[in-house]
Amino acid sequence: MPRIILKIEYLGTRYHGWQRQAGLSSIQQTVEEALLAFLGEEVVVTAAGRTDKGVHAEGQIIHFDTTRERKMHEYVFGLNHFLPLDIRILEAHPVAGDFHARFDAIFRRYEMRIYNRRVASAILEGRVLWHKIPLNIELMQQGANFLLGEHDFTSFRGPDCQAKTPVKHLQVCKLSRQGDLITLNIQASGFLHNMVRNITGVLLKIGEGKKPPEWAQEVLYAKKREVAAKTVAPQGLSLVEIFYKNILKNN
Amino acid sequence: MPRIILKIEYLGTRYHGWQRQAGLSSIQQTVEEALLAFLGEEVVVTAAGRTDKGVHAEGQIIHFDTTRERKMHEYVFGLNHFLPLDIRILEAHPVAGDFHARFDAIFRRYEMRIYNRRVASAILEGRVLWHKIPLNIELMQQGANFLLGEHDFTSFRGPDCQAKTPVKHLQVCKLSRQGDLITLNIQASGFLHNMVRNITGVLLKIGEGKKPPEWAQEVLYAKKREVAAKTVAPQGLSLVEIFYKNILKNN
Repeated sequence: MPRIILKIEYLGTRYHGWQRQAGLSSIQQTVEEALLAFLGEEVVVTAAGRTDKGVHAEGQIIHFDTTRERKMHEYVFGLNHFLPLDIRILEAHPVAGDFHARFDAIFRRYEMRIYNRRVASAILEGRVLWHKIPLNIELMQQGANFLLGEHDFTSFRGPDCQAKTPVKHLQVCKLSRQGDLITLNIQASGFLHNMVRNITGVLLKIGEGKKPPEWAQEVLYAKKREVAAKTVAPQGLSLVEIFYKNILKNN
Repeated sequence: MPRIILKIEYLGTRYHGWQRQAGLSSIQQTVEEALLAFLGEEVVVTAAGRTDKGVHAEGQIIHFDTTRERKMHEYVFGLNHFLPLDIRILEAHPVAGDFHARFDAIFRRYEMRIYNRRVASAILEGRVLWHKIPLNIELMQQGANFLLGEHDFTSFRGPDCQAKTPVKHLQVCKLSRQGDLITLNIQASGFLHNMVRNITGVLLKIGEGKKPPEWAQEVLYAKKREVAAKTVAPQGLSLVEIFYKNILKNN
């Protein structure tokens, strides 16, 4: 039975996260229902990253098996007709039968978008994290640099985290600013639950000048969630890229 | 009676344009109702640009007169509490009693944001004009350059236009691309009704390669609306800046 992967973009605002939950709208359920309408058979999809309520994706990868034969461009154009405008299929590719969207991912990249202005953005509402206190991104970058490399990220781990180990390899943690919009580009071998939102909380304290950059290292070394800052709201977060080794059978 | 100006950002999606219309939601009505709640007296506001249904603003300027004494920062923080999240007051300033937001504007700047990808954007839906055919912005820029300067823009004038003259001075008409997002930055002494959306229609034909850059000049010189391309949809358009001469009494 052919295994297919899809690259998906979605706006998380209207959904209770990626994962199917009884009585609540989810992106998984919406995509599975569109696949049923498109393929005429029930399929179960598996995502690379199970994004939380309010979190977006521009590069989510999902896999599923189907007995139906469809051309890859038909997935992109056909399936989008069965989906609401806040979920879009960007690409489709056939993969080997043992490929797994989650377990075979070697790195994941997120972006946290912070709107740093006295007044919130009307245009980007729901798509950015509003922070009204002016932020110094040079200080934030100094703090972020302490987190690079392989570490035990227990201090940044949410209480519902199901990861086997709190040790992750943080490869990129880079801040940039364009006008009022600050982007935190963050890439790791994997992420603990709420890890990006908890790292952002610590970097915001540093950017406000309430804590020195070295505080990021103190928090990291403490390996205690309670020493860190609070978890920031989800709406600035987007899963932008998943990296695999040689997965595509063809294009 | 003090005259006040406000700088406003709004997402046009939920409104039938700036201007108050019986039985339809408008940004003007929403702002006037918030001012009534905030000031405790009825005021009528006048905008620099009466944006159409679905058009956004990040730098709309409005003026009004009030007998009430309020500090300028109270307008920003207080008034925003009475407004929905898709309308935000960014700044407030006192002005001379004869200042007029529309008639005293010397230039206006708009941005048209075009999302140029095979699949529409889930994240920016309603905020960009989706164009699936790949666009060559170098060709579009060559076409745009023919429109710079003072011209009779009758070919780009919508049928409902109430401007006294079709002659406008186009100062900036500049394309740029960042990933899948193309921005047309356009500044003029004034704009005819639908002028930016009609110029965009012509530039899209050029960007697709269906017409040569010189076609922009042919259309301009014809002074006939019917020779141009169709009016593009409003959702990529935003009024970003209004220019005045020395208007502020103080900050």
